[in-house]
Amino acid sequence: MGNIDLNCDLGEGFEAHEKKRDEDVLQYVTSANIACGFHAGDAGTMQTTVRLAKERNVAIGAHPGLPDFEGFGRREMHITPERAYALTIYQTGALQAFAEAAGTRIRHVKPHGALYTMAAKDPELARAIAEAVWDVKGDMLLYGLAGSELIKAGEKVGLNVVSEVFADRVYQADGTLKSRQEHGAVITDRAQAMEQVRDMVLHKKVKTIAGTYIDIEADSICVHGDNEEAVHFARSIREFLMRENIALKSP
Amino acid sequence: MGNIDLNCDLGEGFEAHEKKRDEDVLQYVTSANIACGFHAGDAGTMQTTVRLAKERNVAIGAHPGLPDFEGFGRREMHITPERAYALTIYQTGALQAFAEAAGTRIRHVKPHGALYTMAAKDPELARAIAEAVWDVKGDMLLYGLAGSELIKAGEKVGLNVVSEVFADRVYQADGTLKSRQEHGAVITDRAQAMEQVRDMVLHKKVKTIAGTYIDIEADSICVHGDNEEAVHFARSIREFLMRENIALKSP
Amino acid sequence: MGNIDLNCDLGEGFEAHEKKRDEDVLQYVTSANIACGFHAGDAGTMQTTVRLAKERNVAIGAHPGLPDFEGFGRREMHITPERAYALTIYQTGALQAFAEAAGTRIRHVKPHGALYTMAAKDPELARAIAEAVWDVKGDMLLYGLAGSELIKAGEKVGLNVVSEVFADRVYQADGTLKSRQEHGAVITDRAQAMEQVRDMVLHKKVKTIAGTYIDIEADSICVHGDNEEAVHFARSIREFLMRENIALKSP
Amino acid sequence: MGNIDLNCDLGEGFEAHEKKRDEDVLQYVTSANIACGFHAGDAGTMQTTVRLAKERNVAIGAHPGLPDFEGFGRREMHITPERAYALTIYQTGALQAFAEAAGTRIRHVKPHGALYTMAAKDPELARAIAEAVWDVKGDMLLYGLAGSELIKAGEKVGLNVVSEVFADRVYQADGTLKSRQEHGAVITDRAQAMEQVRDMVLHKKVKTIAGTYIDIEADSICVHGDNEEAVHFARSIREFLMRENIALKSP
Repeated sequence: MGNIDLNCDLGEGFEAHEKKRDEDVLQYVTSANIACGFHAGDAGTMQTTVRLAKERNVAIGAHPGLPDFEGFGRREMHITPERAYALTIYQTGALQAFAEAAGTRIRHVKPHGALYTMAAKDPELARAIAEAVWDVKGDMLLYGLAGSELIKAGEKVGLNVVSEVFADRVYQADGTLKSRQEHGAVITDRAQAMEQVRDMVLHKKVKTIAGTYIDIEADSICVHGDNEEAVHFARSIREFLMRENIALKSP
Repeated sequence: MGNIDLNCDLGEGFEAHEKKRDEDVLQYVTSANIACGFHAGDAGTMQTTVRLAKERNVAIGAHPGLPDFEGFGRREMHITPERAYALTIYQTGALQAFAEAAGTRIRHVKPHGALYTMAAKDPELARAIAEAVWDVKGDMLLYGLAGSELIKAGEKVGLNVVSEVFADRVYQADGTLKSRQEHGAVITDRAQAMEQVRDMVLHKKVKTIAGTYIDIEADSICVHGDNEEAVHFARSIREFLMRENIALKSP
Repeated sequence: MGNIDLNCDLGEGFEAHEKKRDEDVLQYVTSANIACGFHAGDAGTMQTTVRLAKERNVAIGAHPGLPDFEGFGRREMHITPERAYALTIYQTGALQAFAEAAGTRIRHVKPHGALYTMAAKDPELARAIAEAVWDVKGDMLLYGLAGSELIKAGEKVGLNVVSEVFADRVYQADGTLKSRQEHGAVITDRAQAMEQVRDMVLHKKVKTIAGTYIDIEADSICVHGDNEEAVHFARSIREFLMRENIALKSP
Repeated sequence: MGNIDLNCDLGEGFEAHEKKRDEDVLQYVTSANIACGFHAGDAGTMQTTVRLAKERNVAIGAHPGLPDFEGFGRREMHITPERAYALTIYQTGALQAFAEAAGTRIRHVKPHGALYTMAAKDPELARAIAEAVWDVKGDMLLYGLAGSELIKAGEKVGLNVVSEVFADRVYQADGTLKSRQEHGAVITDRAQAMEQVRDMVLHKKVKTIAGTYIDIEADSICVHGDNEEAVHFARSIREFLMRENIALKSP
């Protein structure tokens, strides 16, 4: 009888990351926000994703994030507006070159993670990002949280803006989202999420946590693409919208 | 009828990476080589993996790689021996601190990817790595390709070495592995792979691509842990070894 | 006659990029806080700096920072205590291995930049860092801002702590430093800075911006090492201390 | 009277780290190759350097490098042509966005370090880079080593190319540069360097290490910008060219 060791390479993942099902979800969406290498994504992935989106006629957008790979761009960092401007220019420019090389173009910019949430509240940061988008190419759309400072800044700068809403997030009376750190921030009941979608799209209203309804601008619904359940959810929303005779098209 | 855009975050993967099934494969192996933050892994992942391995009584090893996150450490880089020494010290030290903080210790070091294959052929690089391991802690084991320069360098430096073999890779007449770039480098027939394992472990021989047998030292079999099939393969090898009355234990 | 430590942040360059003036400042200080690769420094620089410090009998310390290379670790990031723990373990372990390989050891840990200032105010973060230092090696010293939460956390965990003061920074009535973002945060008059040093070291007092004196624990003075003027300043302090019969020694 | 371009690599610092002497050298050159964030440079530095170059009427070029920060992009890495294409697109696009935001444009692309030297010898890599430049914007110039594969690839793709020569590097009989790893690769005698410049610019010849003269295309001379001596050298060349009635202008 011999004896043997069996060894294995481990720990090669990244806590905040997961392999993404890009091809699956691309069949259900009309716009893609492509990571630009700071919080996630690298040159090869950007090139591939641009091509996939183009093939499926999905509008291509830059998705610039904080320089925080380890935290997947989800941790707030105290950056100056100047820095926010520069990182938006850098990442948007990089993606734009892939789009142009593929014979297409960037249609929009949507900040990622903590950059998105900070820009929703901080007018200075919001303005810096809006100016960066304008300075790269003034005819691009700027995506932001409906009713947020980023939307206001985009309008002030002269950009066409896209107000983004969430099917499965709980809204507060002031129009902001209940923080994910808190209990009950996510709507897990699918029927309730669909009802929220219907309210927002057809009636421009959303029911808040207080039970009251507030006005909301809904140009785009955000769905997540990073796991199997998310892909199912994207399909559910798409099917629901079709049943409700709501046409799906990118702005 | 309203109309709506459906947008999705995409391109957040990393070409050379995949979400790893660490917990699954840990039930089948006796040694774990944990990535140390250069080609993959971060501080949080290292901490978690060290704890998982300790809980399951799997021996913990450092798995230092080249500073090539984008390429997952698999691309050759022309580094000096001094640099190889320094990056081995750095990464091994970092993992060692997690092991000590968890009340355990590092049992071995195994270079990753291109660092492993370069050290198999290049005596200078091999010596630099072996010296780094010795300088961090002389009682650690050094894993290397059976018959390689790294094994020789480890012995010369005074380390206990572990000769690693592969169940599903094709060997050439000189004991080196057929390159993965070439066709037919991987044994896809499972029965044939198991036969290769039996030959190596029980008879210290391996059948080469030329059809001849050569001697081989087999202290450890490498299995991959990064996808479902790999986990099945690890289990198959384990079961095969048990049927053959070959005890599984870490060196 | 009092005695005092003079500490300096070092190893903040990158071997293949532009060099820092580490050798110059090493003649004037008694403790070196060596960057560990997150906000600055790389494996080769760490190795070189450890050797330089050892040669000059300067006590070696780890200087872990936030994973923010772009911002030199000076921007606040919202990290969890668990993450602060893990990044302290990682970086301290890496430096420790270089120290051991050079036949010496780490004497202390001092967090860098925003990690230092966040840990001065946030008890949770402070505790996580103190526990990490304890878990790596309980006999290391922990450097922190005099009177800060980090000092308290270190004491609670059982570490020996070193209270750090600044010669050229303006203190507020509550013992905290006036923020660098604000005007008048730095004492530019050298005589006044020396007077502040004398007050702190000999009388354990410091004059605040309000004109009042408060108690302060002063075990170590921080000097900066990254430019020519800083080296002159380090020398001035050293000469001043010698004239005042204050012995320079590391804790 | 001949005329010649003088180019320099710039923007290789990091805003929050130590600064480079970019402003000094910008007075003496006609073209600036700006680092794009892989081997050096960050978003803020790129923005600043683009503005500086524009103010001084220095032509702006992208200076893409390998993803090897630690090695300053000077270490060869085995990357595929596909990867070389993608990293050229990414970095050039990022810089282009800064140029456009500043109301100007990129005039050329010059690969950095090991990417430059690998592309000089490897036709596949050269073609991938040339195609990337073409795909970003076909009217940009491609800088490469005079007589190299990169120059040939650029011409084949349809780009206008700029043949770069070195004042202080020793040429071999086949037109390649003597490797910096070898002794005597650099001309330290300034008069001899100036003579080499005169030969190349006015007579399209260069004296090789064998003592023979070979033909050489000289559209641009590379000077280095990263230290005081380099700035003096740039000024010397500029003054020498003026005395020789050779006009300095960017291609």
